[in-house]
Amino acid sequence: MQSIPRALRRALVGKPIHNERFHDAVLPKRTALPVFSADALSSVAYAPDEIILTLALAGTTAVAISPWVGLAVLVVLAVVIAAYRQNVRAYPSGGGDYEIVSKNLGRTAGVGVGAALMADYTLVVAVSMATAAQYVTAALPGLADRRVELAVVGVLLVGLLNLRGLAFIGRAAAVPTYFFLAVLAALLLVGVGQDLTGSLGQAPSADREVLPAAGFDAGLTGLAGALLVLRAFSSGAVALTGVETITNSVPYFRKPRAANAAATLGLLGALSAALLAGVMYLADRTDVVVVGNPEEQLLVDGRLPAPDFFQDPVLGQLAKTVFGTDSLWFYVLVAATVGVLILAANTAFSGFPTLASRLARDAFLPRQLQARGDRFAFTNGILLLLLVAVVLIVAFGANVNSLIQLYIVGVFVSFTLTQAGMVRHWGRVRRMRPHPGVRRELFGRRAVALVAFVLCAAVLVVVLVTKLTQGAWITLVAIVLLSAVMAGVRRHYDAVDAELALQPDSPVRALPSRVHAIIYVSSVRKPLMRALAYARASRPSTLEAVVVDTNAAATRRILDEWQRLEIPVPVTVLDAPYRDTIGPVVDHVRGVRRKSPRDLVVVYLPEYVVRHRWERLLHNQAIRPLRARLHQERGVMTASVPWHLSSAAGQDVGPESAPAPQQRAARP
Amino acid sequence: MQSIPRALRRALVGKPIHNERFHDAVLPKRTALPVFSADALSSVAYAPDEIILTLALAGTTAVAISPWVGLAVLVVLAVVIAAYRQNVRAYPSGGGDYEIVSKNLGRTAGVGVGAALMADYTLVVAVSMATAAQYVTAALPGLADRRVELAVVGVLLVGLLNLRGLAFIGRAAAVPTYFFLAVLAALLLVGVGQDLTGSLGQAPSADREVLPAAGFDAGLTGLAGALLVLRAFSSGAVALTGVETITNSVPYFRKPRAANAAATLGLLGALSAALLAGVMYLADRTDVVVVGNPEEQLLVDGRLPAPDFFQDPVLGQLAKTVFGTDSLWFYVLVAATVGVLILAANTAFSGFPTLASRLARDAFLPRQLQARGDRFAFTNGILLLLLVAVVLIVAFGANVNSLIQLYIVGVFVSFTLTQAGMVRHWGRVRRMRPHPGVRRELFGRRAVALVAFVLCAAVLVVVLVTKLTQGAWITLVAIVLLSAVMAGVRRHYDAVDAELALQPDSPVRALPSRVHAIIYVSSVRKPLMRALAYARASRPSTLEAVVVDTNAAATRRILDEWQRLEIPVPVTVLDAPYRDTIGPVVDHVRGVRRKSPRDLVVVYLPEYVVRHRWERLLHNQAIRPLRARLHQERGVMTASVPWHLSSAAGQDVGPESAPAPQQRAARP
Repeated sequence: MQSIPRALRRALVGKPIHNERFHDAVLPKRTALPVFSADALSSVAYAPDEIILTLALAGTTAVAISPWVGLAVLVVLAVVIAAYRQNVRAYPSGGGDYEIVSKNLGRTAGVGVGAALMADYTLVVAVSMATAAQYVTAALPGLADRRVELAVVGVLLVGLLNLRGLAFIGRAAAVPTYFFLAVLAALLLVGVGQDLTGSLGQAPSADREVLPAAGFDAGLTGLAGALLVLRAFSSGAVALTGVETITNSVPYFRKPRAANAAATLGLLGALSAALLAGVMYLADRTDVVVVGNPEEQLLVDGRLPAPDFFQDPVLGQLAKTVFGTDSLWFYVLVAATVGVLILAANTAFSGFPTLASRLARDAFLPRQLQARGDRFAFTNGILLLLLVAVVLIVAFGANVNSLIQLYIVGVFVSFTLTQAGMVRHWGRVRRMRPHPGVRRELFGRRAVALVAFVLCAAVLVVVLVTKLTQGAWITLVAIVLLSAVMAGVRRHYDAVDAELALQPDSPVRALPSRVHAIIYVSSVRKPLMRALAYARASRPSTLEAVVVDTNAAATRRILDEWQRLEIPVPVTVLDAPYRDTIGPVVDHVRGVRRKSPRDLVVVYLPEYVVRHRWERLLHNQAIRPLRARLHQERGVMTASVPWHLSSAAGQDVGPESAPAPQQRAARP
Repeated sequence: MQSIPRALRRALVGKPIHNERFHDAVLPKRTALPVFSADALSSVAYAPDEIILTLALAGTTAVAISPWVGLAVLVVLAVVIAAYRQNVRAYPSGGGDYEIVSKNLGRTAGVGVGAALMADYTLVVAVSMATAAQYVTAALPGLADRRVELAVVGVLLVGLLNLRGLAFIGRAAAVPTYFFLAVLAALLLVGVGQDLTGSLGQAPSADREVLPAAGFDAGLTGLAGALLVLRAFSSGAVALTGVETITNSVPYFRKPRAANAAATLGLLGALSAALLAGVMYLADRTDVVVVGNPEEQLLVDGRLPAPDFFQDPVLGQLAKTVFGTDSLWFYVLVAATVGVLILAANTAFSGFPTLASRLARDAFLPRQLQARGDRFAFTNGILLLLLVAVVLIVAFGANVNSLIQLYIVGVFVSFTLTQAGMVRHWGRVRRMRPHPGVRRELFGRRAVALVAFVLCAAVLVVVLVTKLTQGAWITLVAIVLLSAVMAGVRRHYDAVDAELALQPDSPVRALPSRVHAIIYVSSVRKPLMRALAYARASRPSTLEAVVVDTNAAATRRILDEWQRLEIPVPVTVLDAPYRDTIGPVVDHVRGVRRKSPRDLVVVYLPEYVVRHRWERLLHNQAIRPLRARLHQERGVMTASVPWHLSSAAGQDVGPESAPAPQQRAARP
């Protein structure tokens, strides 16, 4: 019946993967690095731009302090990496920040971190694909009006790849990440070499004049200036996202998992720092300028530019400066950047569903988010992420600068709470270890966690102060709402658990005293005979047939046939004064239940099984709502007696085509 | 669970109506006339316009022959009315054209007529509401850009009123139709009076010059001119639609039904003819001009008009001419016309579902179109008509002149086939009656039918020749497709009937030799205990529980509990190498069936019943697809064991709140 969608699904997603092949989905370090680091590494494609264009609000001269802002970001990055290397070793199960906070600060804080990370994974996808679309249009200006479509197609593509499963992604991921690193290394090495030999040129945008925005006419002075520098810093701090991905992904590493993950984290930190430092240095030396709103802020050759004026991103300008404007290197760099941005989105597509699965396992999210699909991917989580990311991209018109305002709030909520949890963790561990050498080592670890906590808390305050009104409030509201939903889901499951738990004195083991079987009759044909046979085979205490009298002639025909065939079952005709078939059956069932409340009522519903979807329009229209309605009644069981219409025959459901069942018996 | 949608439905549609009140839905003549004549009467709001604007393609002078075209339409109208007065008496059951053609010309022709009438009912709704929107914008020019929205809102409104049931519409309908007749009678009487006294003025459009369209520079000469006159005639023939509505609606008349329906038809014919003749006469005398495309065809004060130039419809121009440009009468006329057009759409909303119900009863359409809803309206048919009409209006931008090209093809297909059928009918009846007086009378009736057949066939040829390329091909394709679908549905139901019919030697009475009960286990909690109790109460030959091993820890927990509680039922663990729960259960069931193919397998599925819709996201995700899949298997019955979560308690489903069931026992 579902053969066409299933075939389509197989073509897009691939065949199911057997459990025995799960080890294929576990990654060696050389593959884990590209898969899980793309998010962090790719931020060099937009973090420098955000620092510079934020400072540019205060005019050309303000841009000059951008290297110092970049340095501040690097300091935070170093501290966070150091702290997370400890975290991975202490909590190697893949629960990441959520697990650390839940265990050390309690369930409420844990749920908050879970919600914050989910919000941020979503924004990773949106920001990465919006940035990728921006790079594509830098190389192909004809597509400038198609940024939203490009970004949405990118999200769909990455989502689909993820539905195909991790193993496929893992192998495919290595190439573009290494390619991006190689291209960027070449750019930075050649550029720094030119700088040392004095042959480094000026960026294409170096001669553009930047007009200060309203309120910043005096440059970076006063409180407004200080806040702007902080805002530039908090925009640049996007370079830190992606760190938590590795702590959530420890189970995908080869053993020894924690050690490999910590090593990967260290490598990631070093690479990120080198790339960011190199780009900020060269951007400063070549006087790169980018602004948020070229039509109002920029003077090109002394005039405001046309509305369709396009600014190359910082990496693109550096490529043109170092290798020459018409060099093929520009296009190579764009291709490499787009590749790594796609992988960054991919990182989130592996991190988000893993986290959702973990939250579902702890009953904070619906259970169906918990299960791995037939290709080991967490299918439902992937679809959810895909949907929300597309909505975000469309809502913000794929504008990176707008989306970035929503970003990193979640990351620093999570960092801060995690480090608070780790401070408590190391304190508790230290109290249990009497040995002075161990205690001294643990004191050091606790100190690292404490420094990271203070620093992250400070950054969080800066982010909130400078970005709240810019859009970060949306993220905060989303985090609070999501936390509330998760708490509600947990309460529901807890209540259900309490209700369903078996007490030693549970009376549920008692068998119903009698079984009253009712057969719903709409016509006297073969399906009714089968239902009668099945009902009689279950030997009920009483057995009756009911006919709803919506049509006098049809009812008469049924009763005549009943008599002619001498069917040995009493038949009851139910009045239907409102021409509705469901109400009378429900009323009748209630009447039976009222007479003998301890009995079980079983309603037998003959149902047609058809082969083609369109044929379902022609059958069972009365049965399906009746079954749903009867489910609302207590002490009533419905039994579906299927009749396969011959048009449904020939399907691969017959026993002749079935593969041998795989089972083992366990009789405790 | 569905309490909110149900409450909304009650507020919009009203409470169910008891069978005993059905006679309320039967109409006296004074109400039947407005309900069933609005379609025919309202065509005077657009038929004169269509005649004039079609002729205007050949320039101003061509418009002068419009009264003669109107006269030709009147002749056809008179003959058709005379023929249908006979038809109603001969076939008073309400099957109308469909019944006449099916009985006299066979099933294929009957299906074709059914499809043709369904297409035309849909177009009645679309054309009427598009015209109503045009009149509204004539009075309120500010809404000129909102024609599509106005028409769509009108369709929704009328559809909703019809869902509320016929009785409500019947009483409400009388007022606006009589109002329209009164307003139009006043207009025509005063206008003709002015003409006789020589005080009739010129229409506002009388001094506009009409430029002939390409190909008509020589006016109404040659073949092109002749075809244009025929096209004007076939456009004017829309005045004939609505006749078939009464023949389809005979059951709604008071007794004697056929006589009352025939009398109403006669009255309708006289009124239609008088209105059309009066309007065409006054339009000619006042030199009214309307064209299809003012921006290209019209010279106003010697210049082409602006793109937003608006032409008043003919009725509006006559009101301004007779009563003065600034008279309130213009607005009164617009209000009356919009009212009667809404009722015309309403006519179709009662005719279409009645016809669909008839076709469904004969198994040409899905059975659910057959039943009356809880307010006697044919709910599904109404919703279907509403949807298609909205699609048509949107697709054609509520342009009356475009929609009219699709119109009346169906009507004349139906008229022609019906009269062919009636010729055969009267011939057959006559052969059975030996009395010469009766035979003479029947000869006369047969002659009327024959004349009507020849005339309708001629009109059908004219309509097809002149309109096929203008849009009528869409209607023809729709009729052919719909006929094919209906034939396919009938074939399907026939095949099912043949398959399900009980043969004297049917082996289906045999009971299954043994019943093999399988309980699906996902956790050892109260619902499982209930499922176990219910399954054991049905005393199966064998009883086993199955656990699908998607999670080793969960499986272990279930087996431990099983042992601890000493549940006296063997449990089988099914491997799930692809982490899919459905496949292993199906494979297991097939294995059981293979071992003993004559046994019945019953799979017990514990299901949660929740109160709130959102809670359904949290439960039963695995059960529902499993049940659907098991239905595909032969010899397998599924039994749903509902467990009402306490959040679902307190609903009005408990026996305490149930009304006394209404039933009577019949034990043949």
